[in-house]
Amino acid sequence: MPTAVQESLRQEVLEANLAIPQVGLATLTWGNVSGVDREAGVFVIKPSGVRYEDLTADHLVTVRLSDGAVVDGDLRPSTDTETHRCLYLAFPSIGGITHTHSTHAVAFAQAGRDIPVLGTTHADTFNGPVSVTRNLTEEECLRDYEYNTGRVIVDLLDGDDQRAVEVPAALVAGHGPFTWGATARKSLEHAIICEAVADIALHTLSLNPSGPPPPHLLNRHYTRKHGPDAYYGNPDMTPTSS
Amino acid sequence: MPTAVQESLRQEVLEANLAIPQVGLATLTWGNVSGVDREAGVFVIKPSGVRYEDLTADHLVTVRLSDGAVVDGDLRPSTDTETHRCLYLAFPSIGGITHTHSTHAVAFAQAGRDIPVLGTTHADTFNGPVSVTRNLTEEECLRDYEYNTGRVIVDLLDGDDQRAVEVPAALVAGHGPFTWGATARKSLEHAIICEAVADIALHTLSLNPSGPPPPHLLNRHYTRKHGPDAYYGNPDMTPTSS
Amino acid sequence: MPTAVQESLRQEVLEANLAIPQVGLATLTWGNVSGVDREAGVFVIKPSGVRYEDLTADHLVTVRLSDGAVVDGDLRPSTDTETHRCLYLAFPSIGGITHTHSTHAVAFAQAGRDIPVLGTTHADTFNGPVSVTRNLTEEECLRDYEYNTGRVIVDLLDGDDQRAVEVPAALVAGHGPFTWGATARKSLEHAIICEAVADIALHTLSLNPSGPPPPHLLNRHYTRKHGPDAYYGNPDMTPTSS
Amino acid sequence: MPTAVQESLRQEVLEANLAIPQVGLATLTWGNVSGVDREAGVFVIKPSGVRYEDLTADHLVTVRLSDGAVVDGDLRPSTDTETHRCLYLAFPSIGGITHTHSTHAVAFAQAGRDIPVLGTTHADTFNGPVSVTRNLTEEECLRDYEYNTGRVIVDLLDGDDQRAVEVPAALVAGHGPFTWGATARKSLEHAIICEAVADIALHTLSLNPSGPPPPHLLNRHYTRKHGPDAYYGNPDMTPTSS
Repeated sequence: MPTAVQESLRQEVLEANLAIPQVGLATLTWGNVSGVDREAGVFVIKPSGVRYEDLTADHLVTVRLSDGAVVDGDLRPSTDTETHRCLYLAFPSIGGITHTHSTHAVAFAQAGRDIPVLGTTHADTFNGPVSVTRNLTEEECLRDYEYNTGRVIVDLLDGDDQRAVEVPAALVAGHGPFTWGATARKSLEHAIICEAVADIALHTLSLNPSGPPPPHLLNRHYTRKHGPDAYYGNPDMTPTSS
Repeated sequence: MPTAVQESLRQEVLEANLAIPQVGLATLTWGNVSGVDREAGVFVIKPSGVRYEDLTADHLVTVRLSDGAVVDGDLRPSTDTETHRCLYLAFPSIGGITHTHSTHAVAFAQAGRDIPVLGTTHADTFNGPVSVTRNLTEEECLRDYEYNTGRVIVDLLDGDDQRAVEVPAALVAGHGPFTWGATARKSLEHAIICEAVADIALHTLSLNPSGPPPPHLLNRHYTRKHGPDAYYGNPDMTPTSS
Repeated sequence: MPTAVQESLRQEVLEANLAIPQVGLATLTWGNVSGVDREAGVFVIKPSGVRYEDLTADHLVTVRLSDGAVVDGDLRPSTDTETHRCLYLAFPSIGGITHTHSTHAVAFAQAGRDIPVLGTTHADTFNGPVSVTRNLTEEECLRDYEYNTGRVIVDLLDGDDQRAVEVPAALVAGHGPFTWGATARKSLEHAIICEAVADIALHTLSLNPSGPPPPHLLNRHYTRKHGPDAYYGNPDMTPTSS
Repeated sequence: MPTAVQESLRQEVLEANLAIPQVGLATLTWGNVSGVDREAGVFVIKPSGVRYEDLTADHLVTVRLSDGAVVDGDLRPSTDTETHRCLYLAFPSIGGITHTHSTHAVAFAQAGRDIPVLGTTHADTFNGPVSVTRNLTEEECLRDYEYNTGRVIVDLLDGDDQRAVEVPAALVAGHGPFTWGATARKSLEHAIICEAVADIALHTLSLNPSGPPPPHLLNRHYTRKHGPDAYYGNPDMTPTSS
């Protein structure tokens, strides 16, 4: 029997997926967002290869966290589903995941370079570089490829949930960005910010390939938005705050 | 007597042409899409120099594959018509062709450089570099110029239909990209992807002019979308799959 | 008792804030505009972390110039409020302030480089480079960080009101641009122009990292738009002239 | 008594001016288009500093070719009016002129570099590089500055009308592009193309700062669109052909 999942989660996952082309993060059918229901033990994800203009809530696929089985939905889930599942299992704080092929973040992933912390725009969201994973081995590509894609991200963060909270993004080498957050919507926001800071970083590096600003400036920006001393935002009006 | 061509083909070719400015691939009247009806021995193509905002199905021109004669339509076909015809004759798998002057793909064509395989975004569609042709000789420019433009593409691929299927795009040196596919719509998609990967490649090269990711990663991405073991997409919902 | 502020000022500040995402200067909730009422001794500013699509005039916050106290409004003002206040106190000519994280201006700020005067597009508005501040010290980051952010801008201009009029923009090192003007709307225009000249400057530097055009050309452009001999614009039709 | 000018010219000039922001060539009030009525001895131009969203046909200003006097209109004409007048007087083939501050063309003007002929996209419209003028002298800036801006363009082309026809664009050093054509609309098209080829050229140069494609290829593209052997376009359907 299909596991029930809250209608509000399906709606949020749908909206986050539909936002991907609107904010310019994807071409054609590229990209996908999922959101998890930890109590029900399932997550909801975009189906594979469906065009955004055709996508409705009925197309979303519900997948069981424990084994990846489809428990609701008529379509095949995103080919990247196992990557999402791996990340949900490794990091309990994650409530949503977004994967895109956004231009500048992919450029860093393809170059095998971290997106360095070059200013407060980055530090406002990411408490450290957005790092790139190692390459997958031939064996990891041949078998359980998508799950292994999640594994190299988990390895990159040493499986540390707190690090995943502080830097909610990673670049898979030669591939592109995965971002996450407390909700599906937050994971999408982090994808938008990851692309914006990659774009700015490329221009910064072309002007001046020297070091970052002082850590006390970066730290101030991270902590005024995150943690116990945060004072950014208005609780009732800030759906975007962490 | 004009050869009949399916109305659905005319509609698909019209829509693909109208999409060119919408997806940002062309300035003014630049660019053209055609689609072929192999049984009728004709292809349908955009007329020359007509603005996209004025273009209707009535303006489309039907051209005979065997000799390039206009068999239906009041307007002169695209000046690039003979290039399309040459490609249709050389590669039996091609159902549609798109030509654009999209910014980043043209930059590679003007620089005389292939778009290299730098990541999975490229490998998802193109099973190898998008290569650039040799320059046309003076004689090839003076006589049958447009047909010869097709010839240098055919030469680039050694006239191999299977290569044309695996890398459905080429850059004409000093000119720009031609892409193709099983249908007119697929050829347009490949034009969109060709431009996207050229854009990402330019940024990647500015960050790190070193080599590509491991071939097993690229191969995995190509084969999960193409060939007998493909598992990307949902057959009924994926108009974009090959 | 809350100080009264003119409704027209609130409307102008609202419109200038809503224009930020429309002109492509900000991502998500980033950026803020304020406008001052010198007679009433207050300024009106965007609340913290509210999404532009949700923002209405009711959300705007009125802050007292002398001590930064909120005198009207239910929400917390922008975290950058103290930076605005510092600039209003230092420069009596300023009527409005805009802060964005626009891509190219932030790249210069992150690279620690001034936006140089490379042509008339720059000189039409800025009578000199758009300079970058020094880094804030650790102490300046720990205490009164936002007010100190204004201080480094004031220091950069030697507290000279006339310089603030002639070059109504500055880049905070590692952070991004602050611009100002006689009104909130003018400060927004200067933010748009600051980003445009940063974009053009990046391309110019990639082509030719040599010196600027002759000063007599630059001076001619500045003086035909500003000062007693200005002849640009039509007084009744040019809301954008200084 | 004001000289009568054809209503169709006013309408064309209005539409061409309104198109400038729509095609992304200008920021704020920047840019202007004019069109000439040679028989009436006048040209129609945008007023100075009026925002595009406010611009109507009533705001257009009619200026006498012989002496620059305003013969119709309540507003001051564009500050660049004397540059337009100089070009109309020097080149009898010109029917319309466009001036913009488009990003990539301005970058070449600021770098003091011609936009080189790097491919057929350029050669389709410009039969040679889009060249940059010498700098204006201090004296030329102090007196009759705008007319002298036209003079350096005329000098660049040796006052040769045929050269102005074959390369309908120039870059004023440290300033930006002026383009022209048989009509106001054509001059706007050339501004669009000038920006597009500048954009592509910047990317091409970053990939490969080597030489251009063979001249026979470029010549073929220019002559298939221009001159007695042209075969591009459909006479009744191609408002954009020369």
